[in-house]
Amino acid sequence: MQKGFQGGDAVERYDIAIIGTGPAGVSAALTAKNRNKSILLLGSRQMSEKVAKAHEIRNYPGLPFVKGEDLATAFRNQLEQMEIPVTEQRIGAVYAMGDYFALQAGEEMLEARTVILATGVVMAKTLPGEEQYLGRGVSYCATCDAPLYRSRTAVVIGYSPREEAEAAFLAGVCSRVTYFPMYKDETDLPESVEVIRETPEEILKRETGLAVKTAAGEYATDGVFVLREAVAPSQLVPGLETDGTHVKVNRRMETNLPGLFACGDLTGTPYQYVKAAGEGNVAAISAAAYIDKKAKE
Amino acid sequence: MQKGFQGGDAVERYDIAIIGTGPAGVSAALTAKNRNKSILLLGSRQMSEKVAKAHEIRNYPGLPFVKGEDLATAFRNQLEQMEIPVTEQRIGAVYAMGDYFALQAGEEMLEARTVILATGVVMAKTLPGEEQYLGRGVSYCATCDAPLYRSRTAVVIGYSPREEAEAAFLAGVCSRVTYFPMYKDETDLPESVEVIRETPEEILKRETGLAVKTAAGEYATDGVFVLREAVAPSQLVPGLETDGTHVKVNRRMETNLPGLFACGDLTGTPYQYVKAAGEGNVAAISAAAYIDKKAKE
Ligand SMILES: Cc1cc2nc3c(=O)[nH]c(=O)nc-3n(C[C@H](O)[C@H](O)[C@H](O)COP(=O)(O)OP(=O)(O)OC[C@H]3O[C@@H](n4cnc5c(N)ncnc54)[C@H](O)[C@@H]3O)c2cc1C
Ligand SMILES: Cc1cc2nc3c(=O)[nH]c(=O)nc-3n(C[C@H](O)[C@H](O)[C@H](O)COP(=O)(O)OP(=O)(O)OC[C@H]3O[C@@H](n4cnc5c(N)ncnc54)[C@H](O)[C@@H]3O)c2cc1C
Repeated sequence: MQKGFQGGDAVERYDIAIIGTGPAGVSAALTAKNRNKSILLLGSRQMSEKVAKAHEIRNYPGLPFVKGEDLATAFRNQLEQMEIPVTEQRIGAVYAMGDYFALQAGEEMLEARTVILATGVVMAKTLPGEEQYLGRGVSYCATCDAPLYRSRTAVVIGYSPREEAEAAFLAGVCSRVTYFPMYKDETDLPESVEVIRETPEEILKRETGLAVKTAAGEYATDGVFVLREAVAPSQLVPGLETDGTHVKVNRRMETNLPGLFACGDLTGTPYQYVKAAGEGNVAAISAAAYIDKKAKE
Repeated sequence: MQKGFQGGDAVERYDIAIIGTGPAGVSAALTAKNRNKSILLLGSRQMSEKVAKAHEIRNYPGLPFVKGEDLATAFRNQLEQMEIPVTEQRIGAVYAMGDYFALQAGEEMLEARTVILATGVVMAKTLPGEEQYLGRGVSYCATCDAPLYRSRTAVVIGYSPREEAEAAFLAGVCSRVTYFPMYKDETDLPESVEVIRETPEEILKRETGLAVKTAAGEYATDGVFVLREAVAPSQLVPGLETDGTHVKVNRRMETNLPGLFACGDLTGTPYQYVKAAGEGNVAAISAAAYIDKKAKE
């Protein structure tokens, strides 16, 4: 797992890392493969919730009245036929290292010459207090901030079962972890993690630290980890220019960071499949051109 | 045919006229239809040569290894299923009339509140002398400039059999029409049109007018009509901001003319199907928003 940190074992440096397996990421991967670049496609073998959950799509050119799940299946099969594997890993952070990018995937560090962000947007309301105490007790990244809470207490507010792995990881570091599942599924967590089925309403500042308030009372804690499917793009990539929700790009899908491109919902409205796919295509061509130009320098 | 010019018979004013039936135009039509706008889709029932002629497409998301002709068929069927007819007419010019646009289709004038240009690009070399004498004897539009050559002589250099209709039209106006087919197909022209199977090499200025030079000699004429599949976008839409080949657009696919949008190859590289389709989608949403905003004013 810690390949990236082990002395002898060099990390493979891909030409293009693509984060996200919605239409933007899939399209970028297909075109990057066509351009003979080595690619690392990160996301989910289910592709994208926003694809799979659409009832019937009436405006995807070439596939009339396609069901979302059928479009997702078509994407998955196409990636297989093009021999593009999906690496099922969540990227917690992307760091521009000058010549390349380092991608934090759990405890592992991955490397790529260029990165294409295709992570979509998540319209989640933040909790009162969440943004206020972000970085001052509130965190979006267990892997990044766990060391701050060694032998201290943590509350994890998890918006999907995927986040349970993060809570389990924190349980090995913190003195106590309390988990609030924001979904109905049964949890599968180490015994040491206390699961509370109440809805957090607010994050409050208290004398000894923070507290999570529910209808039933307050839960004191040193740190609150709010773990959602997506993090704000500027959170994901330090230094990235955004307007909060959307990454600033030009018509070539270039961001303010050389070698880093963005596409799809992440770059702004309209939120549409073929717009996302079109931008993925452009981002891949720009990334390939960037690599080719660098190689000549 | 002259519906637009007949007093009593009002011309239907569409919400959105879409010029072009490649992936950009098809995508724009599907999304515009989804937004409940009345649309006039102008182009060809064959969709686009650039689609139909592709051998195998490896990077169109959702349709693995699709043959160009199959993609064209998929587009055609999808338009039928969505009840979007294709009007097979070539647009010679688009005029911004303030509140609406007038589209010249042969001798007919069509009207729309907004226009989406999706005409692709044609990489044709111009003939020596062609640009030099453009507007001074050389013309790209028989319908527009025929009156200038009434009872005078004209040479037509036609790059596809479609242009024969223009030559036939000129034959009814000019004193003599000479036709140079730039293709191998048999011609089907009025007897009064002289067909010459030589390749024009240059357009020259002569004392009495112009001359078309071939390997075999010179052909004196008053006007030279060079008729290709596509005209330069600034030629098609007076006042449109371009860099010569490409229309200037922002990320919403807006041009410098309010209510006029552009998408696909026409807006610049990369020349790619899904990039074109993505931009068509965005252009349609922008056009719909423009109409909705105007309606509220
Ligand atoms: C119910 C519904 C119906 C819709 N209907 C239509 C329609 O009819 N027509 C239309 O054009 N559009 C429709 N849309 C909009 C469309 O779904 C989105 O515009 C489109 O999915 C955006 O694609 P994307 O690739 O940008 O992002 P997404 O599809 O959201 O994909 C983002 C991907 O990134 C992954 N990801 C995110 N963060 C990370 C990370 N840190 N590490 C690794 N992976 C990550 C996610 O798991 C996901 O795979 C609909 C949306 C919904 C929800
Ligand atoms: C052989 C070949 C292979 C290709 N392979 C690939 C590939 O594998 N992947 C990929 O992504 N791209 C590929 N491309 C590029 C792709 O074809 C273009 O990028 C794409 O077709 C552009 O779409 P468009 O809608 O902008 O324009 P076009 O497809 O060129 O369509 C333009 C339309 O406008 C119509 N039109 C033009 N002027 C007028 C007018 N005045 N009035 C009415 N109608 C008009 C035309 O008749 C046509 O229907 C290939 C191209 C070719 C030629």
